Amino acid sequence: MPILVLKFGGTSVGSVDLIKSAAKIIKNEYDAGANIAVAVSAMSGTTNSLIKNIDLISSKDDAEYDSIVASGEQVAAGLMALALQELNIPARSWLGWQLPIYTSGTHRYATISKIESKNILEGFKKKEVAVVAGFQGISLDGRITTIGRGGTDNTAVFLASAINAERCDIYTDVDGVYTADPRIVDNVKRLDKVSYEEMIEMASQGAKVLQTTSVESAINHNVKLQVRSTFDPDNKGTLISEDIQSNEQHAVTGVAYSKDEAKITIINLLDKPGIAATIFKSLSAKDINVDMIVQNNFIDRKVTNLTFTVPVIELKKSLDIIDDLKNSISFESIISEDNLSKVSIIGAGMRNQPGIAAKMFECLSQNNINIEVISTSEIKISVLIDRAKTEKAVKALHHIFELDKL
Amino acid sequence: MPILVLKFGGTSVGSVDLIKSAAKIIKNEYDAGANIAVAVSAMSGTTNSLIKNIDLISSKDDAEYDSIVASGEQVAAGLMALALQELNIPARSWLGWQLPIYTSGTHRYATISKIESKNILEGFKKKEVAVVAGFQGISLDGRITTIGRGGTDNTAVFLASAINAERCDIYTDVDGVYTADPRIVDNVKRLDKVSYEEMIEMASQGAKVLQTTSVESAINHNVKLQVRSTFDPDNKGTLISEDIQSNEQHAVTGVAYSKDEAKITIINLLDKPGIAATIFKSLSAKDINVDMIVQNNFIDRKVTNLTFTVPVIELKKSLDIIDDLKNSISFESIISEDNLSKVSIIGAGMRNQPGIAAKMFECLSQNNINIEVISTSEIKISVLIDRAKTEKAVKALHHIFELDKL
Repeated sequence: MPILVLKFGGTSVGSVDLIKSAAKIIKNEYDAGANIAVAVSAMSGTTNSLIKNIDLISSKDDAEYDSIVASGEQVAAGLMALALQELNIPARSWLGWQLPIYTSGTHRYATISKIESKNILEGFKKKEVAVVAGFQGISLDGRITTIGRGGTDNTAVFLASAINAERCDIYTDVDGVYTADPRIVDNVKRLDKVSYEEMIEMASQGAKVLQTTSVESAINHNVKLQVRSTFDPDNKGTLISEDIQSNEQHAVTGVAYSKDEAKITIINLLDKPGIAATIFKSLSAKDINVDMIVQNNFIDRKVTNLTFTVPVIELKKSLDIIDDLKNSISFESIISEDNLSKVSIIGAGMRNQPGIAAKMFECLSQNNINIEVISTSEIKISVLIDRAKTEKAVKALHHIFELDKL
Repeated sequence: MPILVLKFGGTSVGSVDLIKSAAKIIKNEYDAGANIAVAVSAMSGTTNSLIKNIDLISSKDDAEYDSIVASGEQVAAGLMALALQELNIPARSWLGWQLPIYTSGTHRYATISKIESKNILEGFKKKEVAVVAGFQGISLDGRITTIGRGGTDNTAVFLASAINAERCDIYTDVDGVYTADPRIVDNVKRLDKVSYEEMIEMASQGAKVLQTTSVESAINHNVKLQVRSTFDPDNKGTLISEDIQSNEQHAVTGVAYSKDEAKITIINLLDKPGIAATIFKSLSAKDINVDMIVQNNFIDRKVTNLTFTVPVIELKKSLDIIDDLKNSISFESIISEDNLSKVSIIGAGMRNQPGIAAKMFECLSQNNINIEVISTSEIKISVLIDRAKTEKAVKALHHIFELDKL
């Protein structure tokens, strides 16, 4: 009998009626003969309103934060179990501490280290659906932890691995992964399949479907993901797995963008060993996520210009941090820009087809779009451009790589 | 160092600002040198809105109900711990499963069987305030249970017993126990002290300050209760304890009433052994709370008239149940009235002073108030009267027993 994990995000369980609809989706898979574990997020809005109250009181204790915020998934799991029972499907909710879901690391940003599968597998023997509260676990000292926002995807993937699920269906408010943002490009195509790597690049480049960490977790546990729409469950959505054959003919499978990019350049930085480490360690210690990094060494190799990007909202904080480093590093000046976007093309087939980068740059140039920074990986090319030209760039690239014909 | 339990009900933690005010009350006791455990209810409105969602989905599983509803106290406990930390008081929340608070009985109506005090006492060594989520516990099989509405009072009393607290302060939205309902009688007096027994009679006669079960629990665990106002914490409120000396001079200490009384009389019931048991067992099996019971035997002792009261909202259901008993019991007819109130005078000193009942009945008669049923206990006399005359009766009795001069 196949084992499936079905994950429902906050917008998929955002009201009593939506919970009932989700329960019907689960019933269909159940009636088709699967053993099912469900991972649910909090009803949309719940987590934010809990955090709002916390912020009005104190940010002094992340352990209390976790205990408060985890209540959202506790409620959603209970309501989903009730909705299933109302459809005459045996079901029960499981909280992080009940399974248990063991986590390590700090509160608010814990990572799942182990999900005990025994209770769920016992339930399967009774044909019982396990409704697991997402996003939460327990620490070694028995306190409730949460695993960061979007964490229920991670719960679902880890759960799928723990119970050897055939597939993990991620039910969300979109019906799959597209070649580009449908709000920008008219003739986007839904991708039936993408590889893990493509999905990671898409996620990290701004496609909101899945968090990067969830896809990484799926790779590590070898879990097939299917992104599907709660509102159109007959649609098979997009399968994310190791099998990437189908897209390899096509060099590029998607265009992604992110609009909140700021660029910092440290001019004439005295280049000595460990200097980059000093800078980036200081930034990451303050939770600043540095993305593109470019370094141009001058001929005499004594000074260098170091350029990198950070989220716009972290720009001021980042500049302050670098300023504080003045005693340990030596540089002439810092310049920054806060009106940039990153546009990326992604495709596993890129590996085997030369000339993709040239084609991208030529396309942008023909559209009078200036490239500020370039960064590449095996299956992705990203450029930093003027934010006002984001839509123009995405449309042009979607067209030139014939993604509408996929 | 004295140990105190402070209980805050839903209206006392109904908003972020109220939680902060409650934290200041706790801080005052803490700064005065007490070791403190706090029991909190859910923020007012939370429990009802959770139950509303449950009702929209399914009532099939009280275990899920408990898991969902208990989240309200989980949130309040976390927020209170944060509010205390913000005042630089070490504090942490404890959920039912974390202490643990063991319960027995069925879901939704569980009873606390044991509170493990070890974690709290360890915390006291670190000068840490324990903020315990009220109303909840765990069953032997590790599921979340709740102990019925108003249950946080019970949590607080049990907690006070478990950690040998000197006193359990019940912070609520009234500042103590009064000689009568201030909405009816102008010159009511707050009682500085009442005995457990008086409080039980007052609670069961309609005074809303404390649930009867909480006072019973306080008696069983020999816990002194102090009812105090969250909104006027300097006011000492009313102490409820075994020591009843202070009120013994005064025969009557309070007048209570309840307006939702219905009376049922079974006429010419064939009186044989076990007949009353049959009737009242059938009613209690359907959760109908029978209150006053009066039986008038006729001289030949073969038939009797059996009168009892039930809450008005249960009248129809009660009549149906008795009708269903027609095959097992024999009677001539049933009559019922649904427009009655119960008015009671209460006082521990009643035991030692004769003539109290006569004085009560005379007072009512002088006010043209007809008595339908009388029922007495050692420290209470209750009468059933026309509901329209409730206020008149309460005022007259308050005056005749000189409660305004207490």
